[in-house]
Amino acid sequence: MPQLSERLRNYIARVASLVDGYIYARVYGEPEDLYNAALHLIRAGGKRLRPVIVVAVAEALGEEAEKALPFAASVELVHNFTLIHDDIMDRDEFRRGVPTVHKLWGEPLAITAGDLLYAKAFETLIDARGRGVPAERVARAVQVLARASSTIAEGQAMDIMFEEEEEVDVEDYLKMIHKKTGALFEASAVLGGLVATDNEDILASLASYGKSLGIAFQIRDDILGIIGDEKELGKPVGSDIRKGKKTLPIIYALSRLEGEAREKLFSVLGNNEATRKELEEAARLIRESGAIDYAEKLASRYSEQALSALRVLPQNEYREMLEELASFAVSRTR
Amino acid sequence: MPQLSERLRNYIARVASLVDGYIYARVYGEPEDLYNAALHLIRAGGKRLRPVIVVAVAEALGEEAEKALPFAASVELVHNFTLIHDDIMDRDEFRRGVPTVHKLWGEPLAITAGDLLYAKAFETLIDARGRGVPAERVARAVQVLARASSTIAEGQAMDIMFEEEEEVDVEDYLKMIHKKTGALFEASAVLGGLVATDNEDILASLASYGKSLGIAFQIRDDILGIIGDEKELGKPVGSDIRKGKKTLPIIYALSRLEGEAREKLFSVLGNNEATRKELEEAARLIRESGAIDYAEKLASRYSEQALSALRVLPQNEYREMLEELASFAVSRTR
Repeated sequence: MPQLSERLRNYIARVASLVDGYIYARVYGEPEDLYNAALHLIRAGGKRLRPVIVVAVAEALGEEAEKALPFAASVELVHNFTLIHDDIMDRDEFRRGVPTVHKLWGEPLAITAGDLLYAKAFETLIDARGRGVPAERVARAVQVLARASSTIAEGQAMDIMFEEEEEVDVEDYLKMIHKKTGALFEASAVLGGLVATDNEDILASLASYGKSLGIAFQIRDDILGIIGDEKELGKPVGSDIRKGKKTLPIIYALSRLEGEAREKLFSVLGNNEATRKELEEAARLIRESGAIDYAEKLASRYSEQALSALRVLPQNEYREMLEELASFAVSRTR
Repeated sequence: MPQLSERLRNYIARVASLVDGYIYARVYGEPEDLYNAALHLIRAGGKRLRPVIVVAVAEALGEEAEKALPFAASVELVHNFTLIHDDIMDRDEFRRGVPTVHKLWGEPLAITAGDLLYAKAFETLIDARGRGVPAERVARAVQVLARASSTIAEGQAMDIMFEEEEEVDVEDYLKMIHKKTGALFEASAVLGGLVATDNEDILASLASYGKSLGIAFQIRDDILGIIGDEKELGKPVGSDIRKGKKTLPIIYALSRLEGEAREKLFSVLGNNEATRKELEEAARLIRESGAIDYAEKLASRYSEQALSALRVLPQNEYREMLEELASFAVSRTR
């Protein structure tokens, strides 16, 4: 992530290594195939953004990173559980440059591997007791993570149902990403807070930070899916268009375009045979509909909300890094 | 369940109605399809044995049923989550007399509905705080349920892997049902205990009760899958044989039979075209191998272990009903 400051890059690397070590020490057992399947995507990489938020928030509030690790690991486990199940539902064959779990181990074991990570997330959460987080706050953390998981399932269900609809309302789409992506970022920031405090004002602001950040990230993802650079993203340009994915720019464009332009876009969406030229033409139509401008403005608004919610934290280097993440969310090119 | 005393039948009905009411008040939301899918099997019936164990243990220890409901609901939610996912993996089309969740709503929504129930189980568990269970014991309950869920996933993975093996070792099979079935019964008894106490001796005996009871139930299930009465069970005789399911009597028989008898059994196992006569012949071979005797003795031993573990509880009507459940586990005909 070359656009990040060296400080934040180092911090992310440090948290990622602590969290990975924690997860590997915590998630092992038999049958070996099950545990290999469960850990496959974690081993393959990922940005570890959610654990970084947990740990940075806890450190901003004066706690040690070590104390935050059980909560940090738990959000990464929930995230990876959703990836395994989502890949099955979307029939995706690759992620993080490796074959997906169900491609390698078959669907039954992949479903079970996801279920295992889900359980391990709650086991891990409880470990915070042993690191000095009071039982009341640990119980609250379970509630936060369980509610986020319910909300993610609701968002996932909306996403599944969108696939059957010809057109999706922009508002419904935003509601979906609030649930599917925003909820776990929200929980991450709140869990970071619960390592240190049960002050409701702080927790509410952290919730707002996490949620806004998550949505800004997701919208930026959608934008990059249309205009992103092939080499930087590591996936072919226009792949969201080819797959007919209902992302924000595409939904917006469909709601604005009329006549021939609309027909043209429809003919390329979800068309596996589309040529590179047709994909580029579709991307141009989407851009000309104002969809990219619209999405960029919206993402900026969420990013600003995230920034302003951070004022509840003491001014220190950890808060600065959380601020940088909020800016990075909307400026990143991959 | 006609072999049960009227007292226990009434008690089961009372707990089932309390738990169902609690679940319906707690599990609702949008999208409606997702919640309908998630509640489908719960609405279709089921014995509610796990919640009955939670509530009866809590009452045996002097607590009110109401205080135990969050824990009771949570184990039923975990149980139903595993049923939804298992049905997908086994490609089963009917359960509890209704089409399975993935048959009605498709696989993606069924996977998500299972995930939702899992999250709701942990949300529900935390509600016990509001009913006077101390935070320390609620945190412990989360740990117990999360560990049981991990163990169930391990058992499910073993079960999946058995399907690819021609022969399964009896010991491996028992290890699998310890995990897949025993773990949640064990957690149910321990959660019932945690409503009332953190006395380690009591909790350890309750764990032993629950686990032994669960295994006795499962072995009896396997026995009824071979010799059960068609009308009482509501499924055709020999369906485990026809499906080639690796249940205890079948595994045992394969380990004992030789020559022609063994060939004959192999030719019927998993043979969808098998005639009624062939199925009956296969059942006879299994019986003559000593498999049913063996399984019945083993189930009795687990049932006795369960009974003896109950001595840790005060002598009262709730303990008596828990004792009756342990006997029922091995005598039931459906």
